[in-house]
Amino acid sequence: MAVYTEVTDEALRAFLTDYELGGLIAFRGIAEGVENSNYALRTESGDFVLTLYERRVDPAELPYFLGLMEHLARAGLACPTPVRGRDGEALRELAGRPAAICTFLEGVWPRRVRPEHLAPLGDALARLHAASGDFAGRRPNALGPAGWAPLLEACRGRGDEVQPGLMAELEAQLADILAGWPAADALPVGQIHADMFPDNVFFLPDAEGRPRVSGIIDFYFACTDLLAYDIAVCLNAWCFEADGAFNLTKARAMLATYQAVRPLSAAECAALPVLCRGAAIRFLLTRLYDWTHTPADALVTRKDPLEYLRKLRFFARVESPGAIGA
Amino acid sequence: MAVYTEVTDEALRAFLTDYELGGLIAFRGIAEGVENSNYALRTESGDFVLTLYERRVDPAELPYFLGLMEHLARAGLACPTPVRGRDGEALRELAGRPAAICTFLEGVWPRRVRPEHLAPLGDALARLHAASGDFAGRRPNALGPAGWAPLLEACRGRGDEVQPGLMAELEAQLADILAGWPAADALPVGQIHADMFPDNVFFLPDAEGRPRVSGIIDFYFACTDLLAYDIAVCLNAWCFEADGAFNLTKARAMLATYQAVRPLSAAECAALPVLCRGAAIRFLLTRLYDWTHTPADALVTRKDPLEYLRKLRFFARVESPGAIGA
Repeated sequence: MAVYTEVTDEALRAFLTDYELGGLIAFRGIAEGVENSNYALRTESGDFVLTLYERRVDPAELPYFLGLMEHLARAGLACPTPVRGRDGEALRELAGRPAAICTFLEGVWPRRVRPEHLAPLGDALARLHAASGDFAGRRPNALGPAGWAPLLEACRGRGDEVQPGLMAELEAQLADILAGWPAADALPVGQIHADMFPDNVFFLPDAEGRPRVSGIIDFYFACTDLLAYDIAVCLNAWCFEADGAFNLTKARAMLATYQAVRPLSAAECAALPVLCRGAAIRFLLTRLYDWTHTPADALVTRKDPLEYLRKLRFFARVESPGAIGA
Repeated sequence: MAVYTEVTDEALRAFLTDYELGGLIAFRGIAEGVENSNYALRTESGDFVLTLYERRVDPAELPYFLGLMEHLARAGLACPTPVRGRDGEALRELAGRPAAICTFLEGVWPRRVRPEHLAPLGDALARLHAASGDFAGRRPNALGPAGWAPLLEACRGRGDEVQPGLMAELEAQLADILAGWPAADALPVGQIHADMFPDNVFFLPDAEGRPRVSGIIDFYFACTDLLAYDIAVCLNAWCFEADGAFNLTKARAMLATYQAVRPLSAAECAALPVLCRGAAIRFLLTRLYDWTHTPADALVTRKDPLEYLRKLRFFARVESPGAIGA
């Protein structure tokens, strides 16, 4: 569900007069995405996505997100391009919310990840990192290592209801992860997507019918952090099978194409297992937070935190980067 | 929220090979609609809506719905046209569900109904009734008068939790409505939409900037019933202001353009107040049923039943058809 704020047609028509997009032709809520309200918008100029930023997004951070998307799109990456109004501004206001119109991207996100998706994914992720190298914006990772202990603390009251003993296990894991975490200057840093899950990556078949990346969306967790952490997120999000098994073939396919564009340093390879544990606990903790804090009758689908407990345990047992494809 | 069944991209691609629509270009869940899963689908042939019919829909009734839409579209009504596969069939199966692809309709449904919407609405409703005159299909109205007492009975356990005394009031209202209900052969009967709410009617501005109906969607409550009952649904759904006041100007505007196409008989005019009470209790009862039966953590937004209690009370006080615009 992703329509929290309703937009009247009068308000929308008035809003569109600030753009050079022609008249309104169609406007429908999009079911995907959980943070913001998204609408498929068609005008005489073509197709767009209108996003209204909801309470979880800090308006002060929107220029970073929109600026990064514009920068990446200019560099040739297939990501939504913010559309500027007549006054040159892309970030506007609609229905009392910050709002922006971005270009529509073709493609379909993979409901079931196949091995063939991983090579184009690795290539696209490396190109994203390369293209963001000369972007001037900076945004700390609010859901990075410094944020995990407070998140865990916020779950304390009800975390063990999800699984007995969960909180103690997570405390031990977190201490271990933080002790092994690389120093901020030890590995290459840049702009990372930080939420590169399958539903944020669109594919279309190329001339030979193989999947190619046609779009990367939802940059609203993007931040300035260790580039290899983005790989760790993808290893968590793309390389486990439905039965919980880690698929080494997928991991290797992604890392091979990634490294063809941006080879990992020895230090990055060595850090990958702990970065994967960190990514696993990050998604576990936000899911656990949502699980224990979302009213049971809310519109948002609560995702299972324990899926990430299994991934966390897997990565905690990894003894060398080779075991996860590096 | 309207994506209950996820479709893998492989399954979708395989499904599309049964059509002559060309390759898949884009595929996104649509947030609107509550009964079925709806996806915006773009192929090399254009834009479509893919619907997967969920448990509430009886598969045996789908040929009626799809046949009616095809019939109306052929007659020039702006409604979704089912797309037939290579074998001539429009109703197929996808992801274990009955599924159909229909044409995409341009336009925007009015989040806030303005008086200017009512004239084109009345005209479109009358044209729908006129065009369905030679449609051979028949479907009893499962949510018609015979269904209201069982629905009320099914709410008995928890209905008074919504408002003390509610069940007794509804029992009295229902007895009164059923006593005054017109006989099946007393008024013109035909195919009715039966759910013509603002979110099912799309508008676009005409050359002078006035709204015209560009699409009527969601025929999955359509049935064979009193034509004037469809007007009663619209009087409930389109003619009340946010403060609960009935807007006679809107009602008159709709009835005037309706009658320019299909004049109401004296018997239909006389029956309109009780038909309006019936439509009010119908939506009240299904909302009350959902309110008392939907798990609190379900994805569906539960609509307020009491909105229709206020409308029911209003129509119960109406002393002549003129008071509601007829």
